[in-house]
Amino acid sequence: MRTVSLQEIAQHNKKDDLWVIIHGKVYDLTKFLPEHPGGQKVVLKFAGKDGTKTFDRFHPADIIQRYLSPDVCIGEAEVNNSGEQEPEVETEEDKRVRLAREKMPRLDEMYNTFDFESVARNILKADSWAYFNGGANDEISMRENHNAFHRIWLRPRVMVDVSKIDMTTTMLGDKASMPLYISATALGKMAHPDGEKALAVAAGKRGVIQMIPTLASCSIDEIVGARVHADQTQWFQLYVHKDRRREKDLRQKYVHEGPNEFQDEEINREGGAATAMSGIIDNTLNWNDLAWFKSITKLPIVLKGIQTKEDAVLAARYGCAGIVISNHGGRQLDFAPSPIEILPEIMSALKQEKLENIMEIYIDGGIRRGSDIFKALALGAKGVGIGRPTLYAMSGYGAKGVQRLLELYQNELEMCMRLMGTPTLADIKPEMVDIRNLKDHFVANPTDYLANLSYEKMVPRGNLSKL
Amino acid sequence: MRTVSLQEIAQHNKKDDLWVIIHGKVYDLTKFLPEHPGGQKVVLKFAGKDGTKTFDRFHPADIIQRYLSPDVCIGEAEVNNSGEQEPEVETEEDKRVRLAREKMPRLDEMYNTFDFESVARNILKADSWAYFNGGANDEISMRENHNAFHRIWLRPRVMVDVSKIDMTTTMLGDKASMPLYISATALGKMAHPDGEKALAVAAGKRGVIQMIPTLASCSIDEIVGARVHADQTQWFQLYVHKDRRREKDLRQKYVHEGPNEFQDEEINREGGAATAMSGIIDNTLNWNDLAWFKSITKLPIVLKGIQTKEDAVLAARYGCAGIVISNHGGRQLDFAPSPIEILPEIMSALKQEKLENIMEIYIDGGIRRGSDIFKALALGAKGVGIGRPTLYAMSGYGAKGVQRLLELYQNELEMCMRLMGTPTLADIKPEMVDIRNLKDHFVANPTDYLANLSYEKMVPRGNLSKL
Amino acid sequence: MRTVSLQEIAQHNKKDDLWVIIHGKVYDLTKFLPEHPGGQKVVLKFAGKDGTKTFDRFHPADIIQRYLSPDVCIGEAEVNNSGEQEPEVETEEDKRVRLAREKMPRLDEMYNTFDFESVARNILKADSWAYFNGGANDEISMRENHNAFHRIWLRPRVMVDVSKIDMTTTMLGDKASMPLYISATALGKMAHPDGEKALAVAAGKRGVIQMIPTLASCSIDEIVGARVHADQTQWFQLYVHKDRRREKDLRQKYVHEGPNEFQDEEINREGGAATAMSGIIDNTLNWNDLAWFKSITKLPIVLKGIQTKEDAVLAARYGCAGIVISNHGGRQLDFAPSPIEILPEIMSALKQEKLENIMEIYIDGGIRRGSDIFKALALGAKGVGIGRPTLYAMSGYGAKGVQRLLELYQNELEMCMRLMGTPTLADIKPEMVDIRNLKDHFVANPTDYLANLSYEKMVPRGNLSKL
Amino acid sequence: MRTVSLQEIAQHNKKDDLWVIIHGKVYDLTKFLPEHPGGQKVVLKFAGKDGTKTFDRFHPADIIQRYLSPDVCIGEAEVNNSGEQEPEVETEEDKRVRLAREKMPRLDEMYNTFDFESVARNILKADSWAYFNGGANDEISMRENHNAFHRIWLRPRVMVDVSKIDMTTTMLGDKASMPLYISATALGKMAHPDGEKALAVAAGKRGVIQMIPTLASCSIDEIVGARVHADQTQWFQLYVHKDRRREKDLRQKYVHEGPNEFQDEEINREGGAATAMSGIIDNTLNWNDLAWFKSITKLPIVLKGIQTKEDAVLAARYGCAGIVISNHGGRQLDFAPSPIEILPEIMSALKQEKLENIMEIYIDGGIRRGSDIFKALALGAKGVGIGRPTLYAMSGYGAKGVQRLLELYQNELEMCMRLMGTPTLADIKPEMVDIRNLKDHFVANPTDYLANLSYEKMVPRGNLSKL
Repeated sequence: MRTVSLQEIAQHNKKDDLWVIIHGKVYDLTKFLPEHPGGQKVVLKFAGKDGTKTFDRFHPADIIQRYLSPDVCIGEAEVNNSGEQEPEVETEEDKRVRLAREKMPRLDEMYNTFDFESVARNILKADSWAYFNGGANDEISMRENHNAFHRIWLRPRVMVDVSKIDMTTTMLGDKASMPLYISATALGKMAHPDGEKALAVAAGKRGVIQMIPTLASCSIDEIVGARVHADQTQWFQLYVHKDRRREKDLRQKYVHEGPNEFQDEEINREGGAATAMSGIIDNTLNWNDLAWFKSITKLPIVLKGIQTKEDAVLAARYGCAGIVISNHGGRQLDFAPSPIEILPEIMSALKQEKLENIMEIYIDGGIRRGSDIFKALALGAKGVGIGRPTLYAMSGYGAKGVQRLLELYQNELEMCMRLMGTPTLADIKPEMVDIRNLKDHFVANPTDYLANLSYEKMVPRGNLSKL
Repeated sequence: MRTVSLQEIAQHNKKDDLWVIIHGKVYDLTKFLPEHPGGQKVVLKFAGKDGTKTFDRFHPADIIQRYLSPDVCIGEAEVNNSGEQEPEVETEEDKRVRLAREKMPRLDEMYNTFDFESVARNILKADSWAYFNGGANDEISMRENHNAFHRIWLRPRVMVDVSKIDMTTTMLGDKASMPLYISATALGKMAHPDGEKALAVAAGKRGVIQMIPTLASCSIDEIVGARVHADQTQWFQLYVHKDRRREKDLRQKYVHEGPNEFQDEEINREGGAATAMSGIIDNTLNWNDLAWFKSITKLPIVLKGIQTKEDAVLAARYGCAGIVISNHGGRQLDFAPSPIEILPEIMSALKQEKLENIMEIYIDGGIRRGSDIFKALALGAKGVGIGRPTLYAMSGYGAKGVQRLLELYQNELEMCMRLMGTPTLADIKPEMVDIRNLKDHFVANPTDYLANLSYEKMVPRGNLSKL
Repeated sequence: MRTVSLQEIAQHNKKDDLWVIIHGKVYDLTKFLPEHPGGQKVVLKFAGKDGTKTFDRFHPADIIQRYLSPDVCIGEAEVNNSGEQEPEVETEEDKRVRLAREKMPRLDEMYNTFDFESVARNILKADSWAYFNGGANDEISMRENHNAFHRIWLRPRVMVDVSKIDMTTTMLGDKASMPLYISATALGKMAHPDGEKALAVAAGKRGVIQMIPTLASCSIDEIVGARVHADQTQWFQLYVHKDRRREKDLRQKYVHEGPNEFQDEEINREGGAATAMSGIIDNTLNWNDLAWFKSITKLPIVLKGIQTKEDAVLAARYGCAGIVISNHGGRQLDFAPSPIEILPEIMSALKQEKLENIMEIYIDGGIRRGSDIFKALALGAKGVGIGRPTLYAMSGYGAKGVQRLLELYQNELEMCMRLMGTPTLADIKPEMVDIRNLKDHFVANPTDYLANLSYEKMVPRGNLSKL
Repeated sequence: MRTVSLQEIAQHNKKDDLWVIIHGKVYDLTKFLPEHPGGQKVVLKFAGKDGTKTFDRFHPADIIQRYLSPDVCIGEAEVNNSGEQEPEVETEEDKRVRLAREKMPRLDEMYNTFDFESVARNILKADSWAYFNGGANDEISMRENHNAFHRIWLRPRVMVDVSKIDMTTTMLGDKASMPLYISATALGKMAHPDGEKALAVAAGKRGVIQMIPTLASCSIDEIVGARVHADQTQWFQLYVHKDRRREKDLRQKYVHEGPNEFQDEEINREGGAATAMSGIIDNTLNWNDLAWFKSITKLPIVLKGIQTKEDAVLAARYGCAGIVISNHGGRQLDFAPSPIEILPEIMSALKQEKLENIMEIYIDGGIRRGSDIFKALALGAKGVGIGRPTLYAMSGYGAKGVQRLLELYQNELEMCMRLMGTPTLADIKPEMVDIRNLKDHFVANPTDYLANLSYEKMVPRGNLSKL
């Protein structure tokens, strides 16, 4: 492999003649440019230059080897010994982030998922925050996911011996310390340099299952290698790419690492990086393809993204081991209903068809409190997935933040079970939740501003609040 | 035609002796003054002076020829060669508008209809903004029109081959690239100097139908002349004036330009210019008049402004080719329900009477997202009309803005169809939308200020937001 | 009658020896002090001094003669000729009011009832504003009165000849230009020096009926004398005092002025002046007393303050000529429902008992728009009463303000009738209003502040609004 | 008992060698430290020093004698005669509190419970305010408790003789001046130095019953001793500790003071001091234990914290004299429903089982208005308990504040009964309240910020309010 001088590289700095240094190697990205899922702009920024630092914010180290043909590698970049290395200039945003990180609360001062979200908002770069926090269109579905839990009220029983609370369970046959798993979310390194490895560590330490994303920013080897103990379960999320062979490669290489496999029909295209990625997803995927999947693996297949009872029944009939009711965190289709709203009608349809015992039902989206988990279980879920909260917790505090987050969920669920009079998961019954308003979507009349502004608001004596 | 000196003109500057220069000609407007639909004030401002610039903000160039008798024209105004031309003074508002326009976002940064509305609010003169943006009374119906779509949730199906999405359709027999048309809105030049011509261009380029307003600020010749290709369809909105003959003139002159004809019972009188205009509308219009209309034309007649199932059934019985369910953008009667709310009960009544196949059903009002179009189609609409958004898009960016707007609608509808599992319009079914709350008008209890203000609101750690 | 020196008067300045000058006469108010409905404080302020100016803000000139025995009058106060007259000092509040009045909008710029309310809030003294604007407890019922109209939506019919709109009607047999009357409100002089006379003038000029309050701040002679024409109808509100004879006096003296008589069970005690007044009201009043009333008058008796169907049926059975459904403007009992909400169930109960044609049904409370009148009529009301809006209109503009207010109501009702396709009051039918949500009292869940504050709100491009 | 020098005490200032002076005595708290319910931090602050002042903010004087073995007492602390006494330094918070107390409104200016709450917020130390004001998780249930009363509307009857209102009643056989009692709340001294004694005085003066908390900050002797008259009833709240003997002691010592006994399954563990306390509560408590309780006492047992009809029926079957429907002020389990919401279904279940006459039903939580009491009675409650409002009233004004508070409740209830047409408690009937919306939990759709911010809000002319 030849050594290429920096001077030579610098000359290939145009759209139709584009070389970039990554991890000391020089790549000709001219042909790849239009196919880059993250768009052309970010690549062109490093035309004729070293793009390693930005590359590492998004990608696993081995991604070039896996996706591009070997001949795009021109050679090794000359090492810069001139002492003329460009000084790192701190941008305005770098400064904002640095200062915000200096003021970050201590980890033991974080008491709930919203604390983590608020801190993440302060300390993340704007692009990372926008990517993680954003939802489709008006972000109605994204917010509705948690919102819907507020329409479910509890019916606590008293005078029950709750001195011992047991929330251990199994998911697809594997043990878990609680009925919660870490769901697959793309591009974890945008939150923290450890990326999905941090999630693997936290999951292992707290005894919960992690679902590895197709679009991980760490390599599968790295994520699997980060496991805390040998029998730590990991699931694998599978997007179906247009060129299906690549997924087969991936699966054949990695499924032995975790016992189970997730197949996810998620189609992520709401804008920015996400839109670009959707270009590589197979839009022809349909029920008939499931037969083919079942023919090539003995792993249990779980279908993620189910949103109607009709499709839940189909999934059971097509032999899925489970489904995840999900609207993909409200990132794809606005006004897709929240999973918790759909759960009862799916359970009811499966029961009517006598299919309720052949599949495990999971939900993700909007799980922000231990009581949310309780409500999902009462309505028939085997467990729940959490996505964004893990990214937010990781943003500020890495694996330890995620551990703390999982501890908070566990504590809240334990307290909820104790106060509900349910010492074990088996004690949690549908009649313990009041869902009469679950399907009611209340949209207030447009505000009567004239009447409101004419009215002089009452203020309690001595009040210091702002209205 | 005699040449009249500026000095002579300047002497006719009173209410009972009123000459005004428009496009170089001198008119005696003394008798016309009380009939001016836009009020007397704006005319008197130019008594004895040149009113061309303001005239052009509202009117087609040929309007005087069409509406006034030839003898009001006194002659040609002397050309001012004195070099003493009044210097143009920039008013405070002109300055505000100029500065706002300088800061306008680039067109490719506009991502949705609300971006266009917000930009229009900044860059329009106050009178234009008030005229376009205003609604009747408390503007409840105006806002409810979009609001009501929030009460409809989607039921997305998965595992459907959505690699090809086809949203082409026909309306009254003519092809359209998508199930959307540009509805008639008055006085387009208040938004942009190109007025309705800009809409014609954008409609042609994006393959959608334009409805030409009765109260256009461009002449029909101009709007028809602005078409991009020869078979571009335009519809014509017909207000019925007290003096019905004028409309007959208009129609006989122009209907050959576009294949179809709209008859609109819209009565626009909510205040300002709009109120004035209502004086010229025929309030006696009733169902019996429809027979007369049908006797004088073979063009299909579509009745705009239907708001009850009873009237929809009558329209079908009276032989209309279609109806537009519309509350006129909430500009007329506050607490008139939103069209999307009325659509299902109209479809159901037509079906009960076996009339659902003899008319095409359109709705307008509040269509702001691609998913709004999807919802309307699922509930039985053949297509939807958009009004204000085209004015807002035109305000800042002319025809190109409207093209961008139409592209955004199209992209959003395509994404929605893909994620709903509906490759063609025929796949869109009523059971794909959940309308259980559609007719629920939730008005919150008056706020309990004492309790709210006594309560200390929770704030997440590290939060920087304002409450 | 002896002349009393100012020096002598000044010595009687204690609670147990209390003289006050009013309109040049000296009164010994020692015994009356604890019975003063407005409290002792305001009287003691003028102990030994001249209280005329403040007296006139609340009372008719003849009130002392009517309520107190002649021997409380000590004599005539010495006329102050010393030139040492106390200079009028402008208080901070006087100044605020003066400046606010200087900035008052022109009357023709007032477009709706809320404009009048907002102006009144600026220009009234704090005690007047608090007295007029206040409601019971949390002011839920007060605001709910108008709020409830927002739960009623319209069903407009099209293609109806609406070239002529007729809204004239009769009330208790007397003609009215529209189905609206001015309801009785106490202490009108707190709003404007002309007090209830201003209302009489405006009512006469616009052809509507005025209900004269028991607790008027003008004498009945003054209010009756202010009528614009001889056959102008006035009704009389009758509180039943503990000492019933006084009301008899009043009635015998004044009922010949107006053709009808209102008997009002209103019990006004929500605080301040109002609370004090309740001390003089007869709490024993009950249905049996109605027989006695009917035995002493041939005037029609209308019972005001009905709030249930049970009491409406009783009122009919006891021979009332009408009822006013009213919660007294939400001034008495918080969570008393709005009259418009109760109207349909009362109509339905009367129909069931075949009593709907023997009484006229009125409502008051929250009528702020012409469409509110339309809705009330559609649900069975013969007419509506307006209270606070007349006080607000009078505050800034006297009788002319009230005329403008009545004109606005009339214009709005006319426009509403035109756009609803109802040329006469008889065309207004129950099926034209959608009341399915009328009885739904939506109280939002407590706000989820943590989730709300963590969420980054979307803002349209170019937006200048505050959230 | 030996006298210990300050110098010697100062040397025992470590976690594993910890002496503290309290009320002049020296205690070795080394072993007790980890068991301190309020945490170790606050104790360590006074290691080797005098902690009396802080001790007195939380504890009854006799608590050490009652809970710790006598041998922890080392001796008497040397009296400091050196003149070197540490000067009292005013902290920032002390200063804030002092200034706020100087600006406190006069007691006769306090008109409702919210006034007291707002004043308390200003004048309490941050830890006291947080302890009293806080609720579980998102504080939804805490706020919902009062909120739910807003879903109940009244049906007032007129023409009833209401000249005399009688609201006296009995509770568990004892007389009360109104159907309200002061509920048990922990750590009253954090609100006011008089602690629960202030409540005893106010209760006695106003003739209402007080429930003495298990976790009182005054000794039972003190609270009982503070009674105003000999037959003043006090109830006793009983937490069941892990070591049950202590409660037996307490009960044997004190039950003769008050005629009745409350048994409360409250489990207080929402954080801070509260969490620590939960460690001492017996989590194994269940229905079988009730038999044991009944075997050891003839006092009536009332079960507090019932939240379902199932448990209410069980309580009746197990022989309880009464129940308190309560979610513990929303301090324990968020999304536990409000007691007023559960009351009707409990009454209905008891009636169905013919158990409604064998138990008295109470509710607590969110009672903030006289009308709240009326609503609870109409739905079947024998009386209501108030908690936080007494602490707030006490914070600023001691016993006199609580008396004023009780007077306000009484006045409001009297006015409500008068205006409802119910002269006695027996006249209050279920049909007088409209509960059709009581169980509706309305959660608004996520806000459409783009549409809201694009819209230009209407503002009435002359308006000075902020939006």
